[in-house]
Amino acid sequence: MGEEPATPLQRLRAMGLSLPAAPAALASYVPTTTLPVGDGRVLVFVAGQVAMKDGVPAHRGRVPDEVSLAAAQENARLVGLNILAQLEHAVGLDNVVRVLKLDAFVRSADGFEQQPAVVNAASELLVAVLGEAGRHARAAVGVIGLPGGVPVEIAAIALAREMPR
Amino acid sequence: MGEEPATPLQRLRAMGLSLPAAPAALASYVPTTTLPVGDGRVLVFVAGQVAMKDGVPAHRGRVPDEVSLAAAQENARLVGLNILAQLEHAVGLDNVVRVLKLDAFVRSADGFEQQPAVVNAASELLVAVLGEAGRHARAAVGVIGLPGGVPVEIAAIALAREMPR
Amino acid sequence: MGEEPATPLQRLRAMGLSLPAAPAALASYVPTTTLPVGDGRVLVFVAGQVAMKDGVPAHRGRVPDEVSLAAAQENARLVGLNILAQLEHAVGLDNVVRVLKLDAFVRSADGFEQQPAVVNAASELLVAVLGEAGRHARAAVGVIGLPGGVPVEIAAIALAREMPR
Repeated sequence: MGEEPATPLQRLRAMGLSLPAAPAALASYVPTTTLPVGDGRVLVFVAGQVAMKDGVPAHRGRVPDEVSLAAAQENARLVGLNILAQLEHAVGLDNVVRVLKLDAFVRSADGFEQQPAVVNAASELLVAVLGEAGRHARAAVGVIGLPGGVPVEIAAIALAREMPR
Repeated sequence: MGEEPATPLQRLRAMGLSLPAAPAALASYVPTTTLPVGDGRVLVFVAGQVAMKDGVPAHRGRVPDEVSLAAAQENARLVGLNILAQLEHAVGLDNVVRVLKLDAFVRSADGFEQQPAVVNAASELLVAVLGEAGRHARAAVGVIGLPGGVPVEIAAIALAREMPR
Repeated sequence: MGEEPATPLQRLRAMGLSLPAAPAALASYVPTTTLPVGDGRVLVFVAGQVAMKDGVPAHRGRVPDEVSLAAAQENARLVGLNILAQLEHAVGLDNVVRVLKLDAFVRSADGFEQQPAVVNAASELLVAVLGEAGRHARAAVGVIGLPGGVPVEIAAIALAREMPR
């Protein structure tokens, strides 16, 4: 398989991906908050991320009747990229020690039971980019509505080394 | 604009608001839990708050067809007041270092996409009362049902200085 | 009432219950993550737990029209057992200092408002087994869908003493 890329950003590049700018909060809140928890480490709370493209939702609607499972997975992957962008902006991806938890919400048609298959696309991206540090606990549930009609929203909690200032 | 009120409780008073008694848990749980995280600080988990009035829900139903957007915002503001009441009771509002995260659930009709507009009413109250310490990360989603038929439920995580006992 | 059983596992046995094996994650995530928070203590994030029986959901469907309130409570109790199983596996039940928070999701029919009555079955089990250490903050909401059609999913955050290795 060749040499393993050394850093998260190199791994992203090797996957043909690049990090978007960390999205601004869409309302009266902030994208991330941090608190020191000793030993030069901080806990990072990442606000619920969604996938926008040029100011409008990248996908829009219920899974699977309005947004197919495959499209929802693509959306979840974009959401995962935004989580990485927020972590890069807040603490630097090189400093992420562990993604501790994802709270994942999938806008679901009545009877849709494959929320895990949707959210896996985000989870797998985090592991591909961050390696073991990307392996997280997770809750994935189906909701009746999400902001702006997006199909996927994911919030995260991570542990990081404090960035040298 | 005159002099800035010095404390969270003074700011509340200047807004014509007063803090309700911290609501008791409605079931088999407690309203807040805390854990020390070093340097005389504690992490506070606030259970999901709803808005009751004289023992019944202040508003009841789905947003926006049963509860209007404006009424849902008024409800979210009452929920925000209850979060402040729980923080005052648990650690004292003067000791709040940062509201780290809100998890906000809005009972939504199919197709309702303005959960952020509802939850902003709570978020903006926290910032008005706590200042920079009130600026939080947040997830806001639309759910099919909430306890007792309320339109809004919000849980919170905050960092505070330990109260001298 | 006789002598109080001394340990969580003894209390479980006295209730006629035994701990299942900690369920493996059903998708691209891990069942628990932990982080040290000083003084030999760790914070534990338990991924959303559901109740499976021989590889299929123990119950399946919406509450209360497809799964009765009583059956949903039985399901929530099984989910609570799985949370205990994850804590036993990750840190040992004897080391649990406090269950800090439950995030509870109940697959709900439109108009169902008794999510707390469902989730109480899990909350009460935690208190019965862990005593004061089991008393937690909680959010309980009604969702339109859950993985595999289960009626209840619950995630948890706990504080524990580090297991001697």
